Amino acid sequence: MLAFDARHGSTKAALFDNSGQMLGFSHTSTPVCDVTPAESLMLHIEDLTTQFARDFPKVTPTAAGLIAPGIVDDHAGIAILSASLRWANVPYKRLTEDRLRLPSTFSNTARAIGEAEFRLGAARPYKNVVVVRFGTRITASLFIDGKAHDGGGFAGGIGHSIVDAQGEKCLCGSHGCLDTVASGGAIVRRYANLTGDAVTGAEDVLERARNGDTAAEGVWNDALEALALAISQVAAVIAPEAIVIAGGVARAGDELFVPLRRRLDDLLSFHRRPTVLPAILGPDSTLLGAALRARSVV
Amino acid sequence: MLAFDARHGSTKAALFDNSGQMLGFSHTSTPVCDVTPAESLMLHIEDLTTQFARDFPKVTPTAAGLIAPGIVDDHAGIAILSASLRWANVPYKRLTEDRLRLPSTFSNTARAIGEAEFRLGAARPYKNVVVVRFGTRITASLFIDGKAHDGGGFAGGIGHSIVDAQGEKCLCGSHGCLDTVASGGAIVRRYANLTGDAVTGAEDVLERARNGDTAAEGVWNDALEALALAISQVAAVIAPEAIVIAGGVARAGDELFVPLRRRLDDLLSFHRRPTVLPAILGPDSTLLGAALRARSVV
Repeated sequence: MLAFDARHGSTKAALFDNSGQMLGFSHTSTPVCDVTPAESLMLHIEDLTTQFARDFPKVTPTAAGLIAPGIVDDHAGIAILSASLRWANVPYKRLTEDRLRLPSTFSNTARAIGEAEFRLGAARPYKNVVVVRFGTRITASLFIDGKAHDGGGFAGGIGHSIVDAQGEKCLCGSHGCLDTVASGGAIVRRYANLTGDAVTGAEDVLERARNGDTAAEGVWNDALEALALAISQVAAVIAPEAIVIAGGVARAGDELFVPLRRRLDDLLSFHRRPTVLPAILGPDSTLLGAALRARSVV
Repeated sequence: MLAFDARHGSTKAALFDNSGQMLGFSHTSTPVCDVTPAESLMLHIEDLTTQFARDFPKVTPTAAGLIAPGIVDDHAGIAILSASLRWANVPYKRLTEDRLRLPSTFSNTARAIGEAEFRLGAARPYKNVVVVRFGTRITASLFIDGKAHDGGGFAGGIGHSIVDAQGEKCLCGSHGCLDTVASGGAIVRRYANLTGDAVTGAEDVLERARNGDTAAEGVWNDALEALALAISQVAAVIAPEAIVIAGGVARAGDELFVPLRRRLDDLLSFHRRPTVLPAILGPDSTLLGAALRARSVV
């Protein structure tokens, strides 16, 4: 199984055997090309595949799974929109199949992470579960009655669920999306705006909050409040058994989970209270999800 | 098919033939009993069944569908909680089967209306659709990839999705639930609080708004804003193709749907934009949903 996780900046690739063992791995720059971005990505994954064939001459991959950020219609295999990678309506499933001459699947980052956590990770015990990716942006994947629900590619957009209609304008054009307050990107930006200090990541803001920086505490608390509110809305409407949180900011561990659970508990009343758990598969779960999806089409 | 729609105040009952034709109908008071409420409801539906047997001696019902408000676990057939009817953890499916000696189903009002609209009404063209009941309270039923999703009985609680965490305390114990601003009950209460005028229903407030009463306009607009916000959150996370709105307040027609669609349109950006449609089956769709559910177990 070939697995590719193409992001703005870098592309991870891996070769898995049928048992799910990762045999080879590479981490390269995603090609930058404003004119033919899809064609250059396809050339890149072809090169990566050739390299795996050289390194593992005895392994013949039987399928490929490509993952990219943005709105992806999994069934059609089309990248509907990716702001960061400047794609719109690219049929990546078909392009990958044509280029690699292998059965291929195409999905987005949130659903790949979800797939991995749902099949092999923290979401495994549940049939109704939402896997939230809490990183630079906030995205999610939904599993309803044991099946991934992609809503034509649009489901799971919790980062663009509005938590405050009077809030800050979001990059997407709406106002007060969860992403404008709670995402890793927002935490960094809001802290820099308050203090004039440039920080490199949400973990720096959290570190400063831990050391008594009240601006950092305020920004972190606002993020937690907003995330708890958005999760409470999901609990009211979908009533999942659990919420699994993956992504860079989720690595904060108890500093995230303890106050988040407390806030969520305060917001809910008779609702089904979801168990809130950290993801367990780590940053390469996207590749694992890609491989799992690829295996399903062999 | 026997269908029962038991509410606080009154119980509707109907006898349907297998083609879905309503043969008999009755509208009686729901028995009030603080000591044995479940037992008295069972006696009541037994009486209603006896009456149908007298009126239609040639019709032998083959199954029964009971509907009640509140949190109902459809699969287990248990009324988890009904504040208005003072039930908690009553196994109504089994009680109905024992009492009527017929295969029986048990569900709640929102899901019965949803079932009817999904099988026979405005939601029929869609596989992913949310049917909202906009009446004295706001509840919903979810259809995901062609199947009802009940979340262990708790799904669809959009009326208790928080639209303003700093908002008014809700009867449920949370603060700022959609129900505290947008439900028919809230519209009446908020108008009365502002003006001191007692009104009998949300339609009276709407009538006054139409005649230039600014307090009524304010209350109605707040309700629309809050409902549009809650629907936008559902659109972001679940991405349904359509939202069908049933219930008493939905009978306001274009006065509801035109501004609601405009507000929703303003809130959303790249999201999948759901078609917002009125329900078409009318106030007895609960009974129809009960009969459809009963038919499924024959």
